[in-house]
Amino acid sequence: MANKIRIGLVGYGNIGKGAAKAVTAAPDMELKAIFTRRNPESMVAADSSISDSGALLLPLADAGKMVNDIDVMMLCGGSATDLPEQAPQIASMFNTVDSFDTHAKIPEYMASIDAVAKNTTAIISTGWDPGLFSMMRILFESTLPGGAAHTFWGEGLSQGHTNAVRRIEGVKYAAQYTIPIEDAVRAARRGEGAELGAYDKHIRECFVVAEPGADTAKIEETIKTMPNYFAGYKTIVNFIDDDEFLKNHTKMPHGGMVIHSGTTGEGLHKNTMEFSLKLDSNPEFTASIMTSYARAVFRMSQEGLFGAKTVYDVPLSYLTAESREGLIKRLL
Amino acid sequence: MANKIRIGLVGYGNIGKGAAKAVTAAPDMELKAIFTRRNPESMVAADSSISDSGALLLPLADAGKMVNDIDVMMLCGGSATDLPEQAPQIASMFNTVDSFDTHAKIPEYMASIDAVAKNTTAIISTGWDPGLFSMMRILFESTLPGGAAHTFWGEGLSQGHTNAVRRIEGVKYAAQYTIPIEDAVRAARRGEGAELGAYDKHIRECFVVAEPGADTAKIEETIKTMPNYFAGYKTIVNFIDDDEFLKNHTKMPHGGMVIHSGTTGEGLHKNTMEFSLKLDSNPEFTASIMTSYARAVFRMSQEGLFGAKTVYDVPLSYLTAESREGLIKRLL
Repeated sequence: MANKIRIGLVGYGNIGKGAAKAVTAAPDMELKAIFTRRNPESMVAADSSISDSGALLLPLADAGKMVNDIDVMMLCGGSATDLPEQAPQIASMFNTVDSFDTHAKIPEYMASIDAVAKNTTAIISTGWDPGLFSMMRILFESTLPGGAAHTFWGEGLSQGHTNAVRRIEGVKYAAQYTIPIEDAVRAARRGEGAELGAYDKHIRECFVVAEPGADTAKIEETIKTMPNYFAGYKTIVNFIDDDEFLKNHTKMPHGGMVIHSGTTGEGLHKNTMEFSLKLDSNPEFTASIMTSYARAVFRMSQEGLFGAKTVYDVPLSYLTAESREGLIKRLL
Repeated sequence: MANKIRIGLVGYGNIGKGAAKAVTAAPDMELKAIFTRRNPESMVAADSSISDSGALLLPLADAGKMVNDIDVMMLCGGSATDLPEQAPQIASMFNTVDSFDTHAKIPEYMASIDAVAKNTTAIISTGWDPGLFSMMRILFESTLPGGAAHTFWGEGLSQGHTNAVRRIEGVKYAAQYTIPIEDAVRAARRGEGAELGAYDKHIRECFVVAEPGADTAKIEETIKTMPNYFAGYKTIVNFIDDDEFLKNHTKMPHGGMVIHSGTTGEGLHKNTMEFSLKLDSNPEFTASIMTSYARAVFRMSQEGLFGAKTVYDVPLSYLTAESREGLIKRLL
């Protein structure tokens, strides 16, 4: 390939590390630089994967000096504080892709990027939810109208809920698993359960290692009554020891389903559509999806399609380096 | 809605009837006319659903007189002979959408339409395979590179294969069921079986009522050696009587799966994506999908995006009448 797409990463946490591997494995991409707010020297010393990647490690404050050397910036920071601050700054100079996942704040986040992406393209909220699951929701509801698509998360580790438990006083380690309730899944497949909320569709199970002498009854009470995170859900709290935690609860599996059932022929015939994921590594899969959308970002920017975009705006042929003719012949 | 999309149907078989119901149910569409090669008077007399629909029933030969009255023609004929003949003629005058499903002939079919669709938009090969399944194949392979997506059809009645059997001399009634081979499904979920072809993944089972005195051995041989349809597959042919056929084999259920398993993190973590359909009515669901793409055809033609297009070229937001802002807020 004559000209590879030159990729920069902003952030090198779980998603950033996954992105480095995905970009390195992509034949049409080159990992040019990793940008960080931390101290580059100490990061390189602590993590040999950085020098192995062949990418430059640069302070985020110097990103502007690389505008001619990077085609797409993959924003790998968190949605709570990193992305709302970084994305509008970076998107004013670079094409970007991110996995912003605070559903309720997407319109506001998108507007903040669209306002600055005048000569750049930014695809926001890729990943699997928002992202692939969002695509399934619109695809299912459009091709089989009537009723709404049901989304189930899990069984898997929820990072946001895990962090919320970790912050409780007296908690040493924690892992929170989201588990779909089987009866609700079956109802969705039957085309029922439109009235069910997230509370009715999921159990939240926590595995907690308490600090020595901590009040476990109080920790359990604090978890179960935590607003926005646990209150209203059926929540199970298990206290375990360090060994069991380190053995069984340090991985990041996840998954989920989008299920839509609807009728055709004036209600006579039932049809059911279902999309499901089973992931050994949630952050690596998210990074892998972002990488395919980095390709789309580059192509849309080449075509002058500037501004903030979503997965709803991107034709699927933009996700791959294969020619349209090849795709049509091989996959249509 | 001020201006509804004015729809014409070409053909009024199973897909055409499903399309009439889907268009009538769509709040942003109006079923304007049904075009047929048959005798309109006798059709109306035989099928009250035509006059119930409120659409004009017109000879296909007169379609050209309606260029100012129809926004999108939904081509509801069969892929074997109807569409290759009709689609280039209609697409020279009208925007079109179809469900052409002879995979091997798609590039040739597409070229024949692209050559004439100079001021019109034609989305070819919508439906679920080609169509939704094609979209999953490209989405899965792009977002999780390495290995190919596995497609399974069934268990269900294949219209194309059933029609192919029905056209054989001496066949009175026929039904062809495609059945996935369970071992192959399990291999796909494990990320194995890359070497398996469609032949290794499906059984084709036919239930045939022969005309009195027909040569059943010859019918069976003709089925089993039919290129593109049966040659190479494990095919079972059962000859049954009229009663059994009419009791058990007149419905049109279908379904299938696209499964893709691949690794991230330099091969350490396995991730599996799966899309599945269970359909009580294959033709009605196909028609329902075509109807959502008729909306996309109309919008693309308004934007001057002329020529032959595929599901790979259409952003998902074009499938619905809902505003982009509403979609992003509600479903992203």
